[in-house]
Amino acid sequence: MSNKTNPGNFLEDFRLDQEIRHATPRTVGWGDVALYTALYGSRFPVPSADSFARKLGLKRAPVDDLLAFHIVFGKTVPDISLNAVANLGYAECRWLAPVYPGDSLTAVSRVIGIKENSNRKTGVVYVRSQGYKDGDELVLDYVRWVMVKKRDEKAALAAERVPTPAMVVQPEQLRVPAGLDFTQYDWQLAGSKFGWEDYTVGEKIDHVDGMTIEEAEHMLATRLYQNTAKVHFDQFRQSQDRLGRRLIYGGHIISLARALSFNGLGNGAFMAAINGGRHVNPTLAGHTVYAWSEILDKAKIEGRSDVGALRVRTVACKDQPTDGFPDKDAESKYLESVVLDLDYWVLMPRK
Amino acid sequence: MSNKTNPGNFLEDFRLDQEIRHATPRTVGWGDVALYTALYGSRFPVPSADSFARKLGLKRAPVDDLLAFHIVFGKTVPDISLNAVANLGYAECRWLAPVYPGDSLTAVSRVIGIKENSNRKTGVVYVRSQGYKDGDELVLDYVRWVMVKKRDEKAALAAERVPTPAMVVQPEQLRVPAGLDFTQYDWQLAGSKFGWEDYTVGEKIDHVDGMTIEEAEHMLATRLYQNTAKVHFDQFRQSQDRLGRRLIYGGHIISLARALSFNGLGNGAFMAAINGGRHVNPTLAGHTVYAWSEILDKAKIEGRSDVGALRVRTVACKDQPTDGFPDKDAESKYLESVVLDLDYWVLMPRK
Amino acid sequence: MSNKTNPGNFLEDFRLDQEIRHATPRTVGWGDVALYTALYGSRFPVPSADSFARKLGLKRAPVDDLLAFHIVFGKTVPDISLNAVANLGYAECRWLAPVYPGDSLTAVSRVIGIKENSNRKTGVVYVRSQGYKDGDELVLDYVRWVMVKKRDEKAALAAERVPTPAMVVQPEQLRVPAGLDFTQYDWQLAGSKFGWEDYTVGEKIDHVDGMTIEEAEHMLATRLYQNTAKVHFDQFRQSQDRLGRRLIYGGHIISLARALSFNGLGNGAFMAAINGGRHVNPTLAGHTVYAWSEILDKAKIEGRSDVGALRVRTVACKDQPTDGFPDKDAESKYLESVVLDLDYWVLMPRK
Repeated sequence: MSNKTNPGNFLEDFRLDQEIRHATPRTVGWGDVALYTALYGSRFPVPSADSFARKLGLKRAPVDDLLAFHIVFGKTVPDISLNAVANLGYAECRWLAPVYPGDSLTAVSRVIGIKENSNRKTGVVYVRSQGYKDGDELVLDYVRWVMVKKRDEKAALAAERVPTPAMVVQPEQLRVPAGLDFTQYDWQLAGSKFGWEDYTVGEKIDHVDGMTIEEAEHMLATRLYQNTAKVHFDQFRQSQDRLGRRLIYGGHIISLARALSFNGLGNGAFMAAINGGRHVNPTLAGHTVYAWSEILDKAKIEGRSDVGALRVRTVACKDQPTDGFPDKDAESKYLESVVLDLDYWVLMPRK
Repeated sequence: MSNKTNPGNFLEDFRLDQEIRHATPRTVGWGDVALYTALYGSRFPVPSADSFARKLGLKRAPVDDLLAFHIVFGKTVPDISLNAVANLGYAECRWLAPVYPGDSLTAVSRVIGIKENSNRKTGVVYVRSQGYKDGDELVLDYVRWVMVKKRDEKAALAAERVPTPAMVVQPEQLRVPAGLDFTQYDWQLAGSKFGWEDYTVGEKIDHVDGMTIEEAEHMLATRLYQNTAKVHFDQFRQSQDRLGRRLIYGGHIISLARALSFNGLGNGAFMAAINGGRHVNPTLAGHTVYAWSEILDKAKIEGRSDVGALRVRTVACKDQPTDGFPDKDAESKYLESVVLDLDYWVLMPRK
Repeated sequence: MSNKTNPGNFLEDFRLDQEIRHATPRTVGWGDVALYTALYGSRFPVPSADSFARKLGLKRAPVDDLLAFHIVFGKTVPDISLNAVANLGYAECRWLAPVYPGDSLTAVSRVIGIKENSNRKTGVVYVRSQGYKDGDELVLDYVRWVMVKKRDEKAALAAERVPTPAMVVQPEQLRVPAGLDFTQYDWQLAGSKFGWEDYTVGEKIDHVDGMTIEEAEHMLATRLYQNTAKVHFDQFRQSQDRLGRRLIYGGHIISLARALSFNGLGNGAFMAAINGGRHVNPTLAGHTVYAWSEILDKAKIEGRSDVGALRVRTVACKDQPTDGFPDKDAESKYLESVVLDLDYWVLMPRK
């Protein structure tokens, strides 16, 4: 193999507290916004219209929170997960400032944990990844852990550590975008009349609509994020894989589920945090994705009467409408139709 | 069903003269322009190049007239046609001002007619929908009627009325974009040497080229317009449908036919009005679309020697090249290959 | 056939030294940039981020060199190759100035050669095509020759001439973008630590990754470039063709190969010239494209210690990983899996 190509990092290449400045800075533009709309059909009004965003005190429409997430995430792939076996989890993910068209994003990760598996062939790497705009303003911060192959089974690890990410981002850690003021919120233009007060803990909502995924769509999305994970793109090699098919980037399903959740959570204007997320079954092109949500918690925001936070669990399913809220079986094992279990906070206007 | 999701309006929910402010304001951007080009390959020069548009007195390239139409149309879907059985017709559609990247669009509809069908299960709703930019400048105005289900067969309607939209928009109602001056029109750069004088009423033109449609394409387009009609996206549920397939948004076919019409009507620079349009057969992914046009009428524009109007009928077909001008059979029934019959006015430079 | 449609030029329609101003001026925008990223997943940092480009002395991120190429190329199709049998070659292609979002591109071609084939049914047309921004700044200049049908076998040609394009663009003809200064180049942010000094003539690099192509993707790309060649879009007619399928625009493969080459040639920041290129086998949707490169030559740039030129040969294959550097067989015939053989110069920072 040429020494010029990137073999990615294997388990024994990571060092505790190592800091990795990721490659490929990326200016987010109006084109990304349009493509994001075309890929998911999202109708949340803040990223949809400058006019709407300005009435809320923002300078213009920020890009969708998940678009910023995917772009930052994509940068980490060549260094963190090129030799991944599985993406195990997310935690402590917070959006700290809106990203606007024209902002240039970069990403840095710090290795916060390493643990070899007992088979000595793989192990788990934990990183805290951070996205910055214009070089120094932190916009996104999250922990991710991923199972990574070892290059050499016999290699010894310098040091191991297993961190314990928080199960839930505390409400006081949620950041309301600077300048945001929901007091002039136009409920009718937003498309839903339900505000923070109208949701109750334990309430379940079927988001009704379904979206079938095509190969071209998930690949366009994943390339847009400059995510290079091979399993999404190379059918020739994937035909030798267990499923025989290209796998869909998990983040594509998160974005689809979030867009579907508009029908029922239409005023969940901003994603403020992800408490945890798991891709519990693979999704392939041809599958139709549905989603339902449960309200896990509600929190006031200190000093604010215009905005509150809802903790939402959104479950996405494949080829399974969600009026029956498909979830786990009697042994607490996810049904085969369930593909995503995402626990997150949204900011919603109060009345 | 959760009370949080939008069930859409059923026939008995509409009231005569009711005004509906539609949700999801939308800033049209440069990304939409690129996606529109990628979806249809349109070569009309005015929306293609700022430089060309500026020589005609515009501030820059406006977005394609149909892109503005689809975005406005998309907003009306959740309120007007979520429970539609069929989209029956358009009339009195006029473009009143160009839309530029950066403009924020909103839409409002007024219910101008309601009529229950004799089966009492469905009825027809007539609306006049209007698109605005920046809150108050009217850019698009059209009448549409659609067959909608009743929620409850036994429900009585408060009042009924059947409006009679004009069969044809009168030439004096056509709006030439403010500032537009065709006297410096660059015929060679535009790609066609034929002007308004060169077309004769009754002339038929085969647009020659064909375009095959993929599922990913029509879904990207329809989501770009934030059009939520379920039949376009959900293969799992559509597999139970009569055709067993996702249906393509009719507007996608209109845009394809318009793009194909460049080859023969290359200087039909602006769509000024739609007199009427019918989607006479469904189009599915895999179909190849062809189109032909007939010149129905010609009109001068009052006080202008640089611009004239052509009334064009464009017929689109599936899997049927159009050198034989496929149309209706001996019983005046559309051939199965015909999918669209669109009657509209274009503005064309004069020599 | 209507006299209003464009039949394209046949061999006998071309005249030596004829100049053809091509239609459809095109403003390149931010949307094109995003779509280009989504189509190819390119990670070269200069077109990816304004911030990165500015540190190198440019005013912002220019669009990908190949995006500019494809748009200029697309304009020439309706006049030069609508009746083409085969695209035979490129030569003397040079990028002369970066193209930025907002620039309006136009194209002009001069006929520099015509030669009838002995069968009298076809012949070869040689053109020098030039792309301009804002009407008068030359941004791209290349020679292309294409086999074109005659309309009438008996037609005599006015005059014939066979030009002899240079086999290689000389290093002193390569243009470094005005203001570009690589001395502050951020190697880590760029994603590869290898500079001009690190490559040796004769070195071969397998770019490892593969990318499967979908019909929707190559059609979106080709329409984005407003390239109207019928074989890319019309499955109904192509089903009668020898291969029975839509053919993929050769330029789409060039862009894929270039994007794949990032893994191994990550600092090949600018394409400065194409010495020659051949599409040696057709590519169809469903094929997975791989690529490998060989360093053919290295050249210093007069008066510059921050930048050098690498002459690269990139070979793309279909459904054939390239760790074995698939090429020609014992009779110097390309293997069936080889689809592209491209010889070009890239500009790379020096250390």
